Amino acid sequence: MIDLRPVGYVTGLLGAVLGAAMLLPLAVDLAEGNGHWPAFAQSAIMTVLTGGLVALACATGLHARMALQQSFLLATSVWLVLPLFGALPFVLGHTGARPVDAVFEAMSGLTTTGGTVFTGLDTMPRGLLLWRSMLQWFGGVGIIVVAMVFLPDLRVGGMQIFRSEAFDTGGKVLPRAAAIASRITGIYVALTGACALAYLGVGMSGFDAVNHAMTTLATGGFSTRDVSFAAFQGAPEYVSALFMLLASLPFVRYIQLTTGSAGPLWRDPQVRAFLATLAVLIALLFAYRVLARGDGAAHALRESVFNTTSIITGTGFASADYQLWGTFPVVLFFFIGLIGGCAGSTCCSVKIFRYQLLFASVMAQVRRIHSPSGVFVPRYDGQAVAAEVMSSVTSFFVLFVLSLGATAVLLTFTGLDFVTSISGAATAIANIGPGLGEIIGPSGNFAAINDAAKWILVVAMLLGRLELLVVLVLFLPRFWRG
Amino acid sequence: MIDLRPVGYVTGLLGAVLGAAMLLPLAVDLAEGNGHWPAFAQSAIMTVLTGGLVALACATGLHARMALQQSFLLATSVWLVLPLFGALPFVLGHTGARPVDAVFEAMSGLTTTGGTVFTGLDTMPRGLLLWRSMLQWFGGVGIIVVAMVFLPDLRVGGMQIFRSEAFDTGGKVLPRAAAIASRITGIYVALTGACALAYLGVGMSGFDAVNHAMTTLATGGFSTRDVSFAAFQGAPEYVSALFMLLASLPFVRYIQLTTGSAGPLWRDPQVRAFLATLAVLIALLFAYRVLARGDGAAHALRESVFNTTSIITGTGFASADYQLWGTFPVVLFFFIGLIGGCAGSTCCSVKIFRYQLLFASVMAQVRRIHSPSGVFVPRYDGQAVAAEVMSSVTSFFVLFVLSLGATAVLLTFTGLDFVTSISGAATAIANIGPGLGEIIGPSGNFAAINDAAKWILVVAMLLGRLELLVVLVLFLPRFWRG
Repeated sequence: MIDLRPVGYVTGLLGAVLGAAMLLPLAVDLAEGNGHWPAFAQSAIMTVLTGGLVALACATGLHARMALQQSFLLATSVWLVLPLFGALPFVLGHTGARPVDAVFEAMSGLTTTGGTVFTGLDTMPRGLLLWRSMLQWFGGVGIIVVAMVFLPDLRVGGMQIFRSEAFDTGGKVLPRAAAIASRITGIYVALTGACALAYLGVGMSGFDAVNHAMTTLATGGFSTRDVSFAAFQGAPEYVSALFMLLASLPFVRYIQLTTGSAGPLWRDPQVRAFLATLAVLIALLFAYRVLARGDGAAHALRESVFNTTSIITGTGFASADYQLWGTFPVVLFFFIGLIGGCAGSTCCSVKIFRYQLLFASVMAQVRRIHSPSGVFVPRYDGQAVAAEVMSSVTSFFVLFVLSLGATAVLLTFTGLDFVTSISGAATAIANIGPGLGEIIGPSGNFAAINDAAKWILVVAMLLGRLELLVVLVLFLPRFWRG
Repeated sequence: MIDLRPVGYVTGLLGAVLGAAMLLPLAVDLAEGNGHWPAFAQSAIMTVLTGGLVALACATGLHARMALQQSFLLATSVWLVLPLFGALPFVLGHTGARPVDAVFEAMSGLTTTGGTVFTGLDTMPRGLLLWRSMLQWFGGVGIIVVAMVFLPDLRVGGMQIFRSEAFDTGGKVLPRAAAIASRITGIYVALTGACALAYLGVGMSGFDAVNHAMTTLATGGFSTRDVSFAAFQGAPEYVSALFMLLASLPFVRYIQLTTGSAGPLWRDPQVRAFLATLAVLIALLFAYRVLARGDGAAHALRESVFNTTSIITGTGFASADYQLWGTFPVVLFFFIGLIGGCAGSTCCSVKIFRYQLLFASVMAQVRRIHSPSGVFVPRYDGQAVAAEVMSSVTSFFVLFVLSLGATAVLLTFTGLDFVTSISGAATAIANIGPGLGEIIGPSGNFAAINDAAKWILVVAMLLGRLELLVVLVLFLPRFWRG
């Protein structure tokens, strides 16, 4: 029998923290005098009380060793439970959302997906807008900690190759998590602050700057405007692209940077591959816009830089409806979203290092079938990749593709069309934000789809954010036999 | 330096055989008195002469040992060169096709894809219709031989697990190929004859029966009618489904059947998985048609059986435009086409045994991350699967997905829309036949797409038919260093 107390304790504690965090939008709505603060007061009380009571009830298990089993449960329960509480203000507040919409929005927030079911953002109480941004901001920093602390130990999707990079604190998961979380949070706060200042500097209002800084660093993509980043065309797009890029690099490199060593950042193969991929895609799209469509160079460059960065990092801001740029960008953006950023960042999707490993594996295989007697070992960062890591990565990729297919088939069963189903499945599992087509495309909204489809997407977002395997392992019968 | 003579010899010889085969449609057109026979006479002379001369020039190398290198080149050169000669009657004959269309049609034929650029089939000279069917029929038997003789030795895409099943004739590739080819051809001819008789029995004309029997056994999908199998609704659909199913089982099992042992067929895990998958998909679609759409049971069952079998086997006949059945079947059919039949049949696509291996690998991985100290080895047919086989299969799958994505992006760059690009890439690489959407869907035609897209699809069909890796290995610089 698994000792559920450590899982309950941490989940409860994080729930209580989430409840306490509701005091911030409460204060904003109080200061605005819009009469909306009671929604946050009610939500905060319910969340803090429930979370606190669960944590207290489980506190006896605080010093129980956090074994592998509990880590899987913890990661899943955090991303399963917090969205339920995070959804409360949407039900109780101005939006008066039905549970399905509220949970969709909170899950989209905490998984940093960024698809929204709400319209009328421009006139929404500021507390609610801030709450949406905060959900993404929490989700962003949360996933870095999970990626740095838990996934390498859980050996999920090849993340074990980053094991040696994690901080060694004697094998105890929770103390190490706390140590890493505090270092990461410092950097995350500093980058968010810098981003907000930069947004201010290029003309955004204080409120817009803070909100977009939070959702930029989280590579989340919630905006305070219905038209998303189209409200901030020009210099803010370049600022945003810069910080989305920074948010999609491995945060462990920033820790090393603060201790004075820039080398690991520049030499990191996933950083190099990511920057090269991004540069090629931007150049491709820019050339297409200028040469094939005859668009102005400055305009085409800005839109190419911003929207490509937004989709590859899974942020999901849109400053233009790229579906109007012809057929090429549409399919390109679909596949760009399946690339993703670096491991140990706030990005989701397949991630660039997995493509590097898969490519190395395929090349080794091609050489092997050419020279059966030769020994060809795939390499990453100059090191031979263990067969176990490779098997982990390929399992992830296979699962990713099959989940995408299964989700698309399920979505279509609810009545969605081909483009909406396929791109909806992709945008949810890769935690991007917008899909394609008129309904959920960059100028669309998830409000119009049916409830069944929303629930399917909620599950897909959770699966994608936890790299699929973390959740699937819970379905092993032997998991529960202890 | 690679000795190209054995490659040239076999390619030339097969070319000459293809040329000689043109005498059959020539005879048909002569008998019909439609004045179309000179097109075949010219094509036959050019093909036999060119093929014969190349074979003669390379005959000095006939007894040179056929090494691995030459096998890769041979498979690729056969499927690259024969479509060029097979295209001649389309250029010189009634269709007066431009080279791009003629090569597309011939490649679609010999790779058993089944997408066509021609309309007006119902009034086309019968010789030309027969030629299209013959191309598919040759392609079908050719690919069984390649899958049984070459791929296991070439260790492509995990096919080496079928190595022990191939006939041992002392390690010489060509004698073994000849031995296997003659056994296979006997069975192939017998099944085609049975299929033709069955078609006759349910009311098809002799000409339609023979042509459709050839393209059914090849799981190719060319028809003598513009409306494809919609011209033969009713009993012929069940006959066709039965023979498409038979064509997608491993032919080595039929050889064993002729020697009196039925056990290997019933116990073959890919046969069981394939039949189970097919049954589930048909049941799903049937239930959807009856319950969600309120269609009549008999009608829904017949259309579900026929069209599901047609797409999963990659045949590509359509007896109805399933795009009109609502959104669910559209996405379902897209993914069904990516399943494929059994290895060692005329089917293409990923194939069912690879999914079985991938599934076993993912399950082993999930168990491994749950119990890091345990040893979990993926199994197939009760045997532990070698790591090398698994790596070969995953490489194939990764390449398949990436090729599909790259092809879709290239297609869209030529101006095709999202659905046409994605489904066009899938239908070409998986050698199915129809895509989705209005242009290339089950009631559409490839004539309307631009030339650049046609060439891209020609390459994709070739890549797909040769299981990708056979062609990619030719791009290794070291391949040519010998």
